[in-house]
Amino acid sequence: MLVVAGTHGNELNAPWLLEQWQRDPASGPQTPLRLEWRIGNPAARSACRRYLERDLNRSFDPSLLQATAPVPLEVERARQLLADCGPAGQTPCPVVFDLHSTTAAMGNSLVVYGRRPADLALAAALQGDLGLPVYLHEADARQTGYLVERWPCGLVIEVGPVPQGVLAPAIVQQTRLAFESGLGALERAAQGSLRLPSQLVVHRHLGSLDLPRHPDGSPAAVLHPQRLGRDWQPLRPGDPLFLDGAGATLPYLPPAGLEGAEVWSVFINEAAYGEKGIALSLTSREGWTVQAAWGEALRQLALPLERQTR
Amino acid sequence: MLVVAGTHGNELNAPWLLEQWQRDPASGPQTPLRLEWRIGNPAARSACRRYLERDLNRSFDPSLLQATAPVPLEVERARQLLADCGPAGQTPCPVVFDLHSTTAAMGNSLVVYGRRPADLALAAALQGDLGLPVYLHEADARQTGYLVERWPCGLVIEVGPVPQGVLAPAIVQQTRLAFESGLGALERAAQGSLRLPSQLVVHRHLGSLDLPRHPDGSPAAVLHPQRLGRDWQPLRPGDPLFLDGAGATLPYLPPAGLEGAEVWSVFINEAAYGEKGIALSLTSREGWTVQAAWGEALRQLALPLERQTR
Repeated sequence: MLVVAGTHGNELNAPWLLEQWQRDPASGPQTPLRLEWRIGNPAARSACRRYLERDLNRSFDPSLLQATAPVPLEVERARQLLADCGPAGQTPCPVVFDLHSTTAAMGNSLVVYGRRPADLALAAALQGDLGLPVYLHEADARQTGYLVERWPCGLVIEVGPVPQGVLAPAIVQQTRLAFESGLGALERAAQGSLRLPSQLVVHRHLGSLDLPRHPDGSPAAVLHPQRLGRDWQPLRPGDPLFLDGAGATLPYLPPAGLEGAEVWSVFINEAAYGEKGIALSLTSREGWTVQAAWGEALRQLALPLERQTR
Repeated sequence: MLVVAGTHGNELNAPWLLEQWQRDPASGPQTPLRLEWRIGNPAARSACRRYLERDLNRSFDPSLLQATAPVPLEVERARQLLADCGPAGQTPCPVVFDLHSTTAAMGNSLVVYGRRPADLALAAALQGDLGLPVYLHEADARQTGYLVERWPCGLVIEVGPVPQGVLAPAIVQQTRLAFESGLGALERAAQGSLRLPSQLVVHRHLGSLDLPRHPDGSPAAVLHPQRLGRDWQPLRPGDPLFLDGAGATLPYLPPAGLEGAEVWSVFINEAAYGEKGIALSLTSREGWTVQAAWGEALRQLALPLERQTR
């Protein structure tokens, strides 16, 4: 299996953790599975920037990967990661964990892209083990090209809050816990002993809200103090949402299509999403019955990992 | 007087505040003083980076400013700010406020560079008004070329914690409070009615500590959880300081010259100081008697501000 850290060059904690394990394997996870690990974007990491030319975690669109015209550095890097450790790469990896951090108060959490059965099984296993909340991202034409989508199975582990460019022990520790839990789930899947909880609670992506903006594009308001730190919590019509320059509170009014819907906020005030026009995202909190087919899909993918063991 | 915001391009809150005031002057401070304001580093702000070629707030060294060889963009910008609003510039400003934010839990605070009487008077006025702690930076040959040093009087207002690239209402509000308090002090100084407290408490810079590092320069440990958020608090020999990759705690051991000294920490885990080799800075907490000459120095500088009033 593959673990990627530093897909964003200013998220320092997961790369630091993996490098300590590499220097001192006794301090790292002890697993019979063969583990490949890569720094996602070493060039951006050297510059302590999220990316140099294009967000690497939006660079895995098939159309970009197959383009014949010159492409941004990060698309080259995406091709290299796939050639190296992709499902049909030199060291084929069926499963990937992509380790991220965020300035939002997401706690220790998972992001799943779409509804692939093996992804859902893995998410259910981690949720059963550690109680991690799950953000299910799908059906957003403005945000595509995520790394994990190009592997047969993959999750993002997302930990926050932590500023960009900051090493913080609690973030390192939470990353470690979630990753080790995922590794344990894969070991059990490979051995045929994985037991999943009966239900998976997901926060399904509905859409995102941007800050109000002046005609020149600059922010006309900031998020309201009552919104900050309230990731995974409900947002109700009339709740304070923004605070404008004159100190006036702007309440949440459901956008078209979400009137009457109960929504829950995630990724509130993530620094890197300003440029993407996202002040927070809205989700629907849903309990899904875990299907036997999910566990079976994960087992099929995990079997070769077991055969690779020493 | 001059107010500069966005000297670092990824510190968004003060520039946002000033721009709202410019759009809607009724929401801004009402003052009889003539106020000039500038975005410190507009190019870096557009890129949401601290700087492009060189930290602007380390680019005001006289030797750099006078260099005849090609200089980094930020030294050009420093020259432009001085030509524009420096003490001998087109619109001469005797006093500058430079508005910053930090990922460290500094709260609402002031940074003073050296011991110029007018700076100390202004700091004492703000401390008397709002209780702001004061970090007195001096005698550090590795960190020079600060903006405020090139004006006859100037303070940095430093507010945190806030991640780089994040707009946060509490940071905006604290910046506003400190700036308005400073403006009020200058108005009273210009009118001859400024009363200062009898004592100024400063945290005088003694030195900085870096993370332990591997031979290749990468961090071998992170700050210990018990250090985080403890800016302005004492650090005693034996206190947990770092946590290494194997989970071992490394205690604080006083560096040479500071054995037996009582030290207080500031700027703990500021993201931008990683590249400067600073994990935290150590200070001596001292109560200084406020001198009548400080207030007089500030009054002399503030008089022309009063003469400029409408």
